[in-house]
Amino acid sequence: MALKQYTNPPQALWDKILTRPSIERASLDAVIADVVANVKSKGDKALFEYAQKFDGVALDNLAVSTAEIKAASAGLNPNLAAAIKVAYNNIYAFHQNQVQAEATVETTPGVKCWRKNVAIDKVGLYIPGGTAPLFSTVLMLAIPANIAGCGEIVLCTPPNKEGKVHPAILFAAELCGVSKVLKVGGSQAIAAMALGTESVPAVYKIFGPGNQYVTAAKQYVQQFGVAIDMPAGPSEVAVIADDKANPAFVASDLLSQAEHGADSQVVLFATTQAVVDAVQTEVALQLDALPRKEFAAKALENSTYIVQENSTDLMAMVNTYAPEHLIINTENYTALAEQVINAGSVFLGGYTPESAGDYASGTNHTLPTNGYARNYSGVSYDSFIKKITFQEISKEGIKNLGPAIELMAAAEELQAHKNAVTLRLRD
Amino acid sequence: MALKQYTNPPQALWDKILTRPSIERASLDAVIADVVANVKSKGDKALFEYAQKFDGVALDNLAVSTAEIKAASAGLNPNLAAAIKVAYNNIYAFHQNQVQAEATVETTPGVKCWRKNVAIDKVGLYIPGGTAPLFSTVLMLAIPANIAGCGEIVLCTPPNKEGKVHPAILFAAELCGVSKVLKVGGSQAIAAMALGTESVPAVYKIFGPGNQYVTAAKQYVQQFGVAIDMPAGPSEVAVIADDKANPAFVASDLLSQAEHGADSQVVLFATTQAVVDAVQTEVALQLDALPRKEFAAKALENSTYIVQENSTDLMAMVNTYAPEHLIINTENYTALAEQVINAGSVFLGGYTPESAGDYASGTNHTLPTNGYARNYSGVSYDSFIKKITFQEISKEGIKNLGPAIELMAAAEELQAHKNAVTLRLRD
Repeated sequence: MALKQYTNPPQALWDKILTRPSIERASLDAVIADVVANVKSKGDKALFEYAQKFDGVALDNLAVSTAEIKAASAGLNPNLAAAIKVAYNNIYAFHQNQVQAEATVETTPGVKCWRKNVAIDKVGLYIPGGTAPLFSTVLMLAIPANIAGCGEIVLCTPPNKEGKVHPAILFAAELCGVSKVLKVGGSQAIAAMALGTESVPAVYKIFGPGNQYVTAAKQYVQQFGVAIDMPAGPSEVAVIADDKANPAFVASDLLSQAEHGADSQVVLFATTQAVVDAVQTEVALQLDALPRKEFAAKALENSTYIVQENSTDLMAMVNTYAPEHLIINTENYTALAEQVINAGSVFLGGYTPESAGDYASGTNHTLPTNGYARNYSGVSYDSFIKKITFQEISKEGIKNLGPAIELMAAAEELQAHKNAVTLRLRD
Repeated sequence: MALKQYTNPPQALWDKILTRPSIERASLDAVIADVVANVKSKGDKALFEYAQKFDGVALDNLAVSTAEIKAASAGLNPNLAAAIKVAYNNIYAFHQNQVQAEATVETTPGVKCWRKNVAIDKVGLYIPGGTAPLFSTVLMLAIPANIAGCGEIVLCTPPNKEGKVHPAILFAAELCGVSKVLKVGGSQAIAAMALGTESVPAVYKIFGPGNQYVTAAKQYVQQFGVAIDMPAGPSEVAVIADDKANPAFVASDLLSQAEHGADSQVVLFATTQAVVDAVQTEVALQLDALPRKEFAAKALENSTYIVQENSTDLMAMVNTYAPEHLIINTENYTALAEQVINAGSVFLGGYTPESAGDYASGTNHTLPTNGYARNYSGVSYDSFIKKITFQEISKEGIKNLGPAIELMAAAEELQAHKNAVTLRLRD
């Protein structure tokens, strides 16, 4: 493995060392525009054709039937069903805790202001298909949507060659109160949820991961007034490890990121060279036993190992990188965690693998990648609501506040704004 | 005035009746790309040249000096300064109330999860210039940025022909703890804050209103990883009025929206035709006295007056429109307010003009337009922070939760994810 390694690199080099590979998107715009136009003009008919073309199946119906959902639940391995329920309960508890009521503020006597959480009425969730069904992502998106009280929760996922959706996806969807599951995949699913077809309801916000076509389509459909969860890029982890960290644990965390795909980003920040050496030895040992070792090996080739002996520099460099996942596997992890300003989700100590957050601890696994941890949060209850402000002013209130408004409106030369107050003061 | 009027229109027509004029943006992309390339290659030099070209001034310095800020504060009309302080206190109180601590959740014994609010480290605020200085927008953006604890708050605004920034803008900026005010306007200001120049720090998120060039530039620079507050469109108000509403008040509210510009959107939902007639009479009376009556008259030409006698239909139609501002000036405003699901900010009762929220009641005036109230909130404290998730799992915790994670990871065929748990369970 040809890893990039640096020891105490000077700050001037940090940006360069931590640069992520650039993502080419513009080239897909023509493809996406074509899909969107097709879905817009032909509706369901286009979706049936794409299912034939890309999923290799002639569907009778785009919507998953109630019978299919019942059969899936009944047929699911009971141990897996139980595990999904454990995850469900934890994710539910963590996201339910995010529902916070704010007090009304009387900013001036007679002037009452407040905010109210209101669900985004219609949301769309995209769940990629393939051999490894991402039912965990169903939990991560549908649970907060359900807690928020979204009126309609639409889920699109591609069918397999038999025209079926994986039972674990259907089980999770039913558990989380998804309104409608549709056998539609790829960029056509995003187009359908943005524009609506006979079978696919149009939604106001689209969530979920996907390949480069899905990602490009999510960006594209924003022009139609649809919101998306966040800009997407390949998944990534940064691990901070000191000489108290078990190198086998550190290696397993790096590998669990690397196995996602060849473009996954893996960065190790170690406090000494000995830590790097020990971890590399363990990585080589563990890699060989992985079924997805080709992906992982490729991702590791693009990985970066950094020895940073000064802990202030170390945390500054981590914040410069702004990782999606940050594992702090050091003795002083609490002190280091205090200094984190740019990260999606942070895992503390030796017994907190990223896998826990990926599946079952309760935190969300839909997180900002590609440096977006500087300016975006991960998906949460907040992602499924709007906070609408309200105000109610009494006669006394406008008497108290009106003169200030009149002065400011006049100074901004907005006479009608002033008049709206003046008329009420005269009353 | 050629108003559009409808009485009890059937639901099938609502979308059409409430369609906003489409906004043409693509045509500006070439202009913006050129500005961005110029700012990127020439830095400050490009900004000095644009100041000469667009603001008609040869600047010595892009940054506003401390001396200029002191002079502005000293020279400001004391009554206006006092009014700004009233607004400041109310806006501060309302946004400070949005800072909510969430409890840590122990989702499983030994598995602790929590979120921490962390400020976006560097933010940029754009304040348009011109004869009417939008110092109120300085308050609306800089106060929550300050409460959030953003490390650097950069403000760009165009200078006048004497190379000065309006004293009310400087006064408000100083009051709110803005780090740096720069005499840079237009799309070049957005490019500079996105990319950084010698004088203008690069920021992670850009806020604020502007003309079509500024709006297009904000959209364009997102490709560099910068976030923006929200997509923008012309300002708009919907007023719901019944026969208990004072027609003069209603007219003044419609006009205070209309005076913003010829493209402002004004919609009246009235419970009877008599209300429409009375309001129209008042609009005609008040319009004539307005200094900006040409703008207002033009906006009113594109306005829509709807009589909707059934209150369920009325609220459904309002939610279909999803107005930026919604004034409910009816006797039963509390009941109607309960039914609002799509609106930016809601003003309740006869003594609550939109002007109050525009300036001084405490709520934010940077709100979703163009139907984005379906899927976006207005600017708040939340807009200036990220919520980073943390988790800390003990040995006991991973023992409790580990088996569920192993099962789920195996089912998703992610063996390394499973290993990261298995190794820890064996420990």
